[in-house]
Amino acid sequence: MKILILGGDGYLGWPTAMHLTAQGHNVAVVDNYLRRSLCREENVEPLVDVPNLHQRTASWESTSGYHIPAFIGDLTKWEFVDEVFREFSPEAIIHYAEQPAAPYSMLNRSAATLTLCNNLEVTANVIFAVQQFNPDVHIVKLGTMGEYGTPDIDIEEGWLEVDHKGRHQKFLYPRQAGSLYHTTKIMDTDLLWFYVRTWGLRVTDLMQGPVYGIFTEENRIDENLYPFLNYDELFGTVLNRFVIQAVADYPMTVYGKGGQTRGYLNLMDTLNCVRLSVENPAAKGELRILNQFTETFSVNQLAQKVQRVARSMGFKADISAVENPRKEAEEHYYNPAHTGLLDLGLKPQFLTDKVLAEMIEFAAKHKKAIRPEQIYRKVRWDHNLT
Amino acid sequence: MKILILGGDGYLGWPTAMHLTAQGHNVAVVDNYLRRSLCREENVEPLVDVPNLHQRTASWESTSGYHIPAFIGDLTKWEFVDEVFREFSPEAIIHYAEQPAAPYSMLNRSAATLTLCNNLEVTANVIFAVQQFNPDVHIVKLGTMGEYGTPDIDIEEGWLEVDHKGRHQKFLYPRQAGSLYHTTKIMDTDLLWFYVRTWGLRVTDLMQGPVYGIFTEENRIDENLYPFLNYDELFGTVLNRFVIQAVADYPMTVYGKGGQTRGYLNLMDTLNCVRLSVENPAAKGELRILNQFTETFSVNQLAQKVQRVARSMGFKADISAVENPRKEAEEHYYNPAHTGLLDLGLKPQFLTDKVLAEMIEFAAKHKKAIRPEQIYRKVRWDHNLT
Repeated sequence: MKILILGGDGYLGWPTAMHLTAQGHNVAVVDNYLRRSLCREENVEPLVDVPNLHQRTASWESTSGYHIPAFIGDLTKWEFVDEVFREFSPEAIIHYAEQPAAPYSMLNRSAATLTLCNNLEVTANVIFAVQQFNPDVHIVKLGTMGEYGTPDIDIEEGWLEVDHKGRHQKFLYPRQAGSLYHTTKIMDTDLLWFYVRTWGLRVTDLMQGPVYGIFTEENRIDENLYPFLNYDELFGTVLNRFVIQAVADYPMTVYGKGGQTRGYLNLMDTLNCVRLSVENPAAKGELRILNQFTETFSVNQLAQKVQRVARSMGFKADISAVENPRKEAEEHYYNPAHTGLLDLGLKPQFLTDKVLAEMIEFAAKHKKAIRPEQIYRKVRWDHNLT
Repeated sequence: MKILILGGDGYLGWPTAMHLTAQGHNVAVVDNYLRRSLCREENVEPLVDVPNLHQRTASWESTSGYHIPAFIGDLTKWEFVDEVFREFSPEAIIHYAEQPAAPYSMLNRSAATLTLCNNLEVTANVIFAVQQFNPDVHIVKLGTMGEYGTPDIDIEEGWLEVDHKGRHQKFLYPRQAGSLYHTTKIMDTDLLWFYVRTWGLRVTDLMQGPVYGIFTEENRIDENLYPFLNYDELFGTVLNRFVIQAVADYPMTVYGKGGQTRGYLNLMDTLNCVRLSVENPAAKGELRILNQFTETFSVNQLAQKVQRVARSMGFKADISAVENPRKEAEEHYYNPAHTGLLDLGLKPQFLTDKVLAEMIEFAAKHKKAIRPEQIYRKVRWDHNLT
C-alpha cells in the first residue's frame, strides 16, 4: 500500500516508516524537524544524537534495500501540502505531524500558540488535501487517551451510548483533557468527526497512551536507526525518563501521590497498532476510534518496576515524590476499554523485566551523555503564560 | 463596570456597545473590520451602508453623550492584544471577535482556514491576556446553540449528567456541529473549559441561537447607528433574509423539507442576555453555560410567519423549497433547555406580527438597495474545498 507518514522524523514516525517498508508497503515520510528545533531551543536534546532524515533513509536503504522518499517542509503551508500530494499519491496517511508534548504546551504563551496553531492547521490541511486529491484515502490520525481525561465512569472506545429522559443518543465519548496539547487533540477529533460526517471521509483516530522503548525489529542492527530518546520533563515520556533517572542516580520524580494511572504501550506495539489500522481501513464515512495501549499502570507502579529491575542491576534507583507541577487527579478511577486493536490482531509486548533491563542497559551504555540538569525544571500548569 | 467588547463593529457588537453605555457601563470596542472585508471580497454587502466604527462612536457620542474608545486592530496579533489590555483594563470582556458565518466557513479552503485560525487564535489570546493582566476578569464568550447539533435527546444547558454501568459523571454536554464555523465554537468551548479548570478563570459561554432584527432602544433615533443587515446566503441570518426576500419578490428559499428547528431571539434580547451575564458574573473557576434563545421555530414556520405578515402588507411573499445545499437533518427532535437567562431576569421580546411588520417596513423603505443576485448562490457543504 502507498502510505504517507506525516511527522516521519519523530519518535514514532521514523520507526513506523521502517516497519511498514519491512512489511512490504511503499512509504514516504514528511517532516519539518519541528521537534528537533524545539528541543534545541529549550536545551533538551535527546540522549543520543540522531542523524537527519535523509541520512536515516540512506542508512535504512543500505541496510534493508528499502527506499523511503523524504519531503522536508511545513504542512501548515498549503503550497507544500500540494507539492507532497502531487508527487506521492498516498492510499493511506499516518498523521503524527503535531507538537507532541503536554509540558511544552504549558511552558509559555508562544509555546501554547505554536501547539494550538500547528496541530490544528496541519490536521485541517490533511483533511482538505484528502478531499481535494482523493477522498478515498484512509487517514490514520494519532490521538491520545489523554483526550478522555480521568472520568469517574468507564472509558469506552471512542463513543458513549446515552439514555436520557426516556430517549437515546450515541455521542462521541465526552472529552476533557489535562493539558493544552491534549486539548488540541480533542479539537482534532472534533474536526475529523465533522468532515467525516460532511464529506464521508474514512478516518481512524487512535487514542494512544504514553509509549516507552527504543528498540524495534528493524532498528537493532544499526544505532543510526534508533529513534529520539528524550529524558527531559518536556519531551520525555515517563517510563523512558525513569529509566534514565535510575541510571543517572537522579531519584525518579513522581509527581504528587503518584496514583495517576494511564494506559501504556511498547514502541513496537505502536508500530503494530498503526500497521493493523492501515491494513484494515475504516469504511467510507466512518470515524473509527481505537484505544491504543496494552496495560495500565500508576506512576508509582512504574517507578517501583524500574526501581526493582535497576536495583537488581546494581543501580541505586531511588524514588522521590515531588510537588505535582501539573493540575491533575492524583488518585482516580480508571477503567478504559481497549479491545478494538486486539480484535484486529494485535499481540501485545508487555512491560516485562526483560524489556526494562534492555532499556536500562541501553541507558547505562550512554550514561556519560546524560545531562541531569535537563531532567526536571518544573514546568508548572498554574504559571502565568508570559 | 469597565467592559471591553471584542468584535465591537459587528451585527451584535455595536448594538451591545451602545446598550451597555446607556445602562451606565464604561465600554471600549475592538475590531479589525474582518466582517466588512469578507463581505466586500465576496460581494455580499449589507442592505444599508454602515459608517466606520470611529464615525459610529462619534454619532453615538453626539446623540447620547457617551464616549466609546475604539481600538482598530487584529486580536490574533499579541502585540495588539497587549496594547489594548494596557490601555483599557477591563473588568469584563465580551468576546464576539470571530468569523461568524457557517456558509462562509464552508465556501472554500482559504475561508475554512481563516475561520479556524482566526476564531481559535483570538480565543486563545483572550485567555492568555486575562491570565497575564488580570485573572479576575469575567470572559463572556458568544458560543452557539449549533454546538449541540440536533441530538435525539433533550439538549440541556451546557452539561449532561451520565449514569453508566453503575457509576456517575457530569460532562460538558457532548457536541457535534453542522458546519466548520460551528465546530470552531466547540473548540472554543473545549479551550475555555481547559483553562477554567487549570487557571480558575471565570467564564460565561453563551450558546446563542440565530438572531433577527435591526432595531434596539438605542438606535431608533439615528439610522447611522443601525447594525449591518446582511440578507445574503453567506452572512445573513435566516429570518432577516426571509424579510428581504419577501419585500424583493424573491421567493423565500427554504432548504429541503424545512423542518430544521432552531432556537431564535430578537437582537434586543441578545443585548439583554449579554448585559445580564456581565452584571451577574460567573464565579472564579466556573464555566457557566447559558442557552441563549427565546423561542424555537422550524424554517417552514418562519417562512410562513413572514409570508402571512408580508401578504397583509401587500407583498407577494412566495415560498420556494430548494435542494438543501447543507448537510443537516431536515426533520428531527429538538427540545433544548433555556432557563438560565430567564432566571437572571430576561424578559423576552417574542417574534410578534408587530416585530415582523417593523422589519418588513424597514426593508421596504430600502427596497431599491436590495441586490437579488447576492441572495442565493448555493454554497454547498459537499463541494470540494479548492
